[in-house]
Amino acid sequence: MHTREACVAADRQDPLAPLKARFDLPPGVLYMDGNSLGVMPRAAAARAAEVITQEWGTGLIRSWNTAGWFELPSRLGDKLAGLLGAKEGELVITDTTSLNIFKALAASLRIQQKRQPERRVILSERDNFPTDLYMIQGMIDLLQQGYEMRLIDDELPLDRALDEDVAVVLLSHVNYRSGQMHDMAAVTRQAHERGALVIWDLAHAAGAVPVDLNGADADYAVGCTYKYLNGGPGSPAFIWVAPRHIPDFWQPLSGWWGHQRPFDMTVAYEPAGGIRRYLCGTQPIVSLAMVECGLDVAREADMAEVRKKSLALADLFIALVEERCAGHPLTLVTPRNHAERGSHVSLRHPNGYEVMQALIARGLIGDYREPEVLRFGLTPLYFGYADVWDAVEILKDVLDSKAWDKPEFKQRSAVT
Amino acid sequence: MHTREACVAADRQDPLAPLKARFDLPPGVLYMDGNSLGVMPRAAAARAAEVITQEWGTGLIRSWNTAGWFELPSRLGDKLAGLLGAKEGELVITDTTSLNIFKALAASLRIQQKRQPERRVILSERDNFPTDLYMIQGMIDLLQQGYEMRLIDDELPLDRALDEDVAVVLLSHVNYRSGQMHDMAAVTRQAHERGALVIWDLAHAAGAVPVDLNGADADYAVGCTYKYLNGGPGSPAFIWVAPRHIPDFWQPLSGWWGHQRPFDMTVAYEPAGGIRRYLCGTQPIVSLAMVECGLDVAREADMAEVRKKSLALADLFIALVEERCAGHPLTLVTPRNHAERGSHVSLRHPNGYEVMQALIARGLIGDYREPEVLRFGLTPLYFGYADVWDAVEILKDVLDSKAWDKPEFKQRSAVT
Repeated sequence: MHTREACVAADRQDPLAPLKARFDLPPGVLYMDGNSLGVMPRAAAARAAEVITQEWGTGLIRSWNTAGWFELPSRLGDKLAGLLGAKEGELVITDTTSLNIFKALAASLRIQQKRQPERRVILSERDNFPTDLYMIQGMIDLLQQGYEMRLIDDELPLDRALDEDVAVVLLSHVNYRSGQMHDMAAVTRQAHERGALVIWDLAHAAGAVPVDLNGADADYAVGCTYKYLNGGPGSPAFIWVAPRHIPDFWQPLSGWWGHQRPFDMTVAYEPAGGIRRYLCGTQPIVSLAMVECGLDVAREADMAEVRKKSLALADLFIALVEERCAGHPLTLVTPRNHAERGSHVSLRHPNGYEVMQALIARGLIGDYREPEVLRFGLTPLYFGYADVWDAVEILKDVLDSKAWDKPEFKQRSAVT
Repeated sequence: MHTREACVAADRQDPLAPLKARFDLPPGVLYMDGNSLGVMPRAAAARAAEVITQEWGTGLIRSWNTAGWFELPSRLGDKLAGLLGAKEGELVITDTTSLNIFKALAASLRIQQKRQPERRVILSERDNFPTDLYMIQGMIDLLQQGYEMRLIDDELPLDRALDEDVAVVLLSHVNYRSGQMHDMAAVTRQAHERGALVIWDLAHAAGAVPVDLNGADADYAVGCTYKYLNGGPGSPAFIWVAPRHIPDFWQPLSGWWGHQRPFDMTVAYEPAGGIRRYLCGTQPIVSLAMVECGLDVAREADMAEVRKKSLALADLFIALVEERCAGHPLTLVTPRNHAERGSHVSLRHPNGYEVMQALIARGLIGDYREPEVLRFGLTPLYFGYADVWDAVEILKDVLDSKAWDKPEFKQRSAVT
């Protein structure tokens, strides 16, 4: 596909192409940031209006029953389950990824306190998304029980880091910056062999790559619905727990919504029997309800086709960048090997921040992550081969013309 | 006001009456459950549509800067501050009341660990809203540091319970069931004299009664925006901290949004300098943004007028119930004394559940809380004197005709 015509032809053959019409995309924009915030499903605005004017405005308090608000976290969790190799009743959509990390961390440490109380290391990666590391630090500081965080990096690879002190491993399935993907089954097996439990952060994986939580024998998983699942800005996150851990699962954020009989108003906390004990406080119903619109589109797609197209789009993007932007100081950060790659491609450029601002000004929206990394998300549900072609042409032009070298592109915003 | 005409005349004199037009109320409904879920401001649907179609759909990831999403929790917190006797920069709107209780509990226990490490009692009320008690239990179980929960009740009044073992007191300003209100300044003073810190749960107070957090010298406060503040179903909660505690404030839910420089993507958590360190994970932007619509109406009202009308409505309701429903087994649960009363009135009836279902079927929406308690919220921004008259007439008719004694009213819903 080294012509635009070939890309257009590939789009015509794409079995996922019809799904693009299920989203509302702003004109004049090439959106390659679905790895950060997904686009708006066409159904979302109407669904929100229904929740607001009918369920809230007219139904008022009755909608807890009549509109099914009370069941929403588990009903939507059941809809998501199939995309993650999970079964119904194994996950809920609730709270934020950070908070769900806290719950999974507390739960897994508690299991280890019973099984192997001497283990005091929480293992993660130096390059993990910062909130994962921050939540570990907050937990360690809170517990004051001698836990420490150990970080995998180039000097300390997983195999060496995973010793008999490790209680819990918290890893991102797909790295937020590099796009590098772990072999979930292999890493989980290795961790289990060494006696550790594994929490997978699927923020950059859910809806982006095939995930098989039960097949990989994972212990816990958390993730985000506003990236590849197109749930809306800041839409609630999810938490999954292996069925074997559910019966004795404990988590400390024991709010009313996770109670076995919340309306008995009893003094003693008694956790709900199943996955609902992961719930804590009252959820933001409008934002939560909209998650369904993105899930409904994702469930129509064959995940094998999504993966196939994601890899093909990324291969094309990499090949075109190397061909059309040769001579510019761009370094590929993302692994070329399909088995090690998620669904975004990262390139390093010494003036990465300015280059990204110039691209955005030209209508190609990706994002920038320290240090010097340009991220480009490939989202097969609404991005095509000709889009990749056009994106690389913009990148080439911005680099060739040095259009990024302007004062206005150096100014940092609050959110990068 | 012992005729409907007198009530209508009182409505005509009501300085708050014009604010009713700022809300969309369903026809044929007398809504006395604003203490559980407030009604929809007319501005809410349009604001949500703007956030969804413009900010999300068109602005996409850029809206973190261009639509001010990043500043939303503190900008809305600043708008709420004045209603609570707080100053700008002292509170944020984020997460849920349950989670904010967890943060305030952790923070206050940490302060006491430094000041008076031998104190190991967390004091609350047996009749407090269950989630408050559940969050205390979760914290105690998590910490495993010998903390215990002590509960005030008829056998153990506050004065006796507040001994030298108490580290932290967690109380609701207005009790969810009885409507009983504490004297915040007096209780806080007493707790401080005994060496304890105080967390106030304002779920049933914010927007309902005058609150003066700084004037009362409170330590922490949390609360809800979806009741008297009309923020929408499950809209995010708030957390306030006394300025004296902000500089050294620590909380364990240390997610990315509370970091000093979240986009530096550093490994070490470094809390933001001010109130923003209370933030944790990504907030549900649509539900959060709608909070502003309710706040904008509440800020237009004079809180002294709101309080005056709330007490007048409740006095009228109590008087009419006692007059018109005399002979029925109704017991007033809420204190008659104005200084001890919030903004809802609770009545006990042996068939409370069925009576409430029958009232709802007749268009009078209150709610039911175990055991046997009918709750009726008085919301001066959109409820009037003639509404009270009509409500009592429906109650009278349901009781006189025994309309509640039908099989369909005995069936319990998931949410009561």
